[in-house]
Amino acid sequence: MTQNVLGQIYDYVDQYFDEHLAATQRYLRQPSISSQNLGIEECAEMTAGILRELGSEATLVPLEGGHPVVYGHLSSRSSDRTLLVYGMYDVQPVEPLDAWESPPFQAQIVGDRIIGRGAYNTKGPLMAFLNGIRSIQAVAGDVPVNMVFVIEGEEELGSKNLPQFIENYADELQVCEGMYFHMPTEFIRGSPLVLLGCKGVAYFELEVKTLPTDAHSMTAPVVRNPVWRLISALGSMRGAGDRILIDGFYEDVQPPSEEDEKLLPELVDTFGPGGLEAMYGIKDLGSDLTGVDFVRQLIFGPSLNIDGFAAGHTGSGIKTIVPASAMCKVDIRLVPDMTVQQVMGGVRAHLDHLGYEDIEIRLLAGYNPAKTSMKESVVQAAVRSIQRMGIEPKVVPMIPSSGPQVMFSDPPLNVPLVISGLGHGWLMHAPNEYIEVEGLRSCEKSAVAFLYEFGAV
Amino acid sequence: MTQNVLGQIYDYVDQYFDEHLAATQRYLRQPSISSQNLGIEECAEMTAGILRELGSEATLVPLEGGHPVVYGHLSSRSSDRTLLVYGMYDVQPVEPLDAWESPPFQAQIVGDRIIGRGAYNTKGPLMAFLNGIRSIQAVAGDVPVNMVFVIEGEEELGSKNLPQFIENYADELQVCEGMYFHMPTEFIRGSPLVLLGCKGVAYFELEVKTLPTDAHSMTAPVVRNPVWRLISALGSMRGAGDRILIDGFYEDVQPPSEEDEKLLPELVDTFGPGGLEAMYGIKDLGSDLTGVDFVRQLIFGPSLNIDGFAAGHTGSGIKTIVPASAMCKVDIRLVPDMTVQQVMGGVRAHLDHLGYEDIEIRLLAGYNPAKTSMKESVVQAAVRSIQRMGIEPKVVPMIPSSGPQVMFSDPPLNVPLVISGLGHGWLMHAPNEYIEVEGLRSCEKSAVAFLYEFGAV
Repeated sequence: MTQNVLGQIYDYVDQYFDEHLAATQRYLRQPSISSQNLGIEECAEMTAGILRELGSEATLVPLEGGHPVVYGHLSSRSSDRTLLVYGMYDVQPVEPLDAWESPPFQAQIVGDRIIGRGAYNTKGPLMAFLNGIRSIQAVAGDVPVNMVFVIEGEEELGSKNLPQFIENYADELQVCEGMYFHMPTEFIRGSPLVLLGCKGVAYFELEVKTLPTDAHSMTAPVVRNPVWRLISALGSMRGAGDRILIDGFYEDVQPPSEEDEKLLPELVDTFGPGGLEAMYGIKDLGSDLTGVDFVRQLIFGPSLNIDGFAAGHTGSGIKTIVPASAMCKVDIRLVPDMTVQQVMGGVRAHLDHLGYEDIEIRLLAGYNPAKTSMKESVVQAAVRSIQRMGIEPKVVPMIPSSGPQVMFSDPPLNVPLVISGLGHGWLMHAPNEYIEVEGLRSCEKSAVAFLYEFGAV
Repeated sequence: MTQNVLGQIYDYVDQYFDEHLAATQRYLRQPSISSQNLGIEECAEMTAGILRELGSEATLVPLEGGHPVVYGHLSSRSSDRTLLVYGMYDVQPVEPLDAWESPPFQAQIVGDRIIGRGAYNTKGPLMAFLNGIRSIQAVAGDVPVNMVFVIEGEEELGSKNLPQFIENYADELQVCEGMYFHMPTEFIRGSPLVLLGCKGVAYFELEVKTLPTDAHSMTAPVVRNPVWRLISALGSMRGAGDRILIDGFYEDVQPPSEEDEKLLPELVDTFGPGGLEAMYGIKDLGSDLTGVDFVRQLIFGPSLNIDGFAAGHTGSGIKTIVPASAMCKVDIRLVPDMTVQQVMGGVRAHLDHLGYEDIEIRLLAGYNPAKTSMKESVVQAAVRSIQRMGIEPKVVPMIPSSGPQVMFSDPPLNVPLVISGLGHGWLMHAPNEYIEVEGLRSCEKSAVAFLYEFGAV
């Protein structure tokens, strides 16, 4: 019967796709750049309005010092299961404007794509999800599962105020049996993914000051150069073969399980050297690893990365100075069972132990890693829903990037998470971000399929 | 007799000082910012005009791709000795404009100072020198030595085209028995210096690229981060106790001679920790050295300094990337008998030996070190001329900074150089650059005294 209803709903999606596409374009035309507070309030209201049109309760929950969460509840008459639907209504800035072939907030269709900020990451997929609910309601008159919507406006700011919300609404959130984040996962068209978790990340700055102001570099023989000091400190953290020398760094690292190892060979196309090179347009990644070894290292290897380094004169030409200070940005990617707290404690202890007490550490963002078991119902539902659409998804034990989704799987909520969805888009955070028009259609259908599978468990 | 003439000339300087001061202000009011090509041609013409007023031949020698040298000859009827007078008519930029308490090109007198760009470095002292010649001619009717003027317009650009000039005019220049650069050396008022040379410098950029574009930092476990690579390469150049580990680096380093060692205790006031701290307004230099040890290290220690480092995201907040490239600026200060060529060869060999063939080296500027013997007549003249004015100068075997003056003492010219002059000024390259009005007067008198001493040898 479900299959029958699903078929009718897919037909409905096809029949009304032009309307759903137009609604998506309207939503993308509303700017919502969180870092510039541009259109945020308007977009939050618009999002709540769309939820209300679906019969959902929806309120804007203000966050101290941040942008509001659009918080909604949509009841099912036929199910006692509840899904936590995580989404985001904010987007990245659009500079440089002149690099866009179509303006970032006009959501024009160019060829087979909608080009626009948020088209792929992730206002487009969010609207596909909500249009999916609209289609379900039109055909079936009811949704197959209760839903709690948490649609935040600070994902692009590192979701820094989301813990506030989670703490205040923990009682209502922890009844959810699973958390779903809807994303077009066809990095390779025709090869969708089910993502069981994310690496954690600790993003921090290190700064060292040795002089009150820049000094003429003729003083170099007798003053302490902060760049040398920071370089020495960083150098002490990394040994031969890129081994990270911070005491206890690898202590809590869990190697891939047997179940994980079985998944890896399937992922070589997407997460192998060729896949990454295609994704980033990078010709030569310079890695010595290949095949499954590359994928294992990418997914299960913790890393100590320098994102930026700034000191002294960096413009053109000559300025002979001993800079007053040096700063670098570092991110550590965490795998289970590492924690932000344990890792940052290790960094501090390492620096102190070597006499670098003067190096200041500023933690800018931290997420713990999250990895959901294949056995969780939310994962099973995601896998089966795509199989029912005639495609065998690849299961990714953990994506090598990090996201706020883990806040729901962390204590106190402990809600298992999954990320999935059909469709192809790309260029998030860059000019000409896009989602394919047909990808939007399959994205909507995959939302419908998932909701039925999760409700039916 | 000379002493008698000198007294009359000093009286003349005092009598006409207001006129000389006004001429200096007019000269400072003509902008001449070489890096912005602002007023350069006008200032070159003005400089040549002033030389011609003194009866000197003066031409503008164009330099391929650069600003002209003002080249002049002034003959003496009474001397067969020839002095090479080095000077510069260009100045640094003036930004930030709003930090000046008096506009940079108005040369206003504020309290006991003339404030203006070039007042101290070095259009003010140059005019003091030329006014000195004017005073000599007014009283004695002739100058006591033949002079060849080389007044360049690219000192603040690293004198990059001066070698062209020196090569083309080597025959005329190498007849000179000494080179003189006139500078107010009273960093501490009442304590003038005679400077016998400069350290050399090799200023270069190191750049490493490992990726065609920035990559998401989730790829960190499997790609080569260029920042780590540059840090490792730099770290390999420096060992315990700041020892520089580039092969052969110390091979040609000459330790201070017995003569040098005798001069060092006298220099603790100016070049000791207190002197440098006063000069730079820096409270704590962070050096473990004190007294003569500090001065010896400052003057005779070669150094490997990082002037700047730039890679990846250096703005506020979070951007998780593996940067495509990393760049740093480095200066190596050279002491006799190191050479730019030998040192840069050592850096390249060091990098290649450790497998860093991919790190690009771009040499931006290089001067060899120069150190004139105390016994040279040009040094003796500088010392005696200040003694005759009743002050015992301190002799500095080598200043810890570098300058184009060494181009004259290098082959093919081999003209021994000295830098000296009375007066106090400061804040070169900074807002509110100044020379004291009374410093300008003693600066002019010290030029007169030097010319007589050098001519009389």
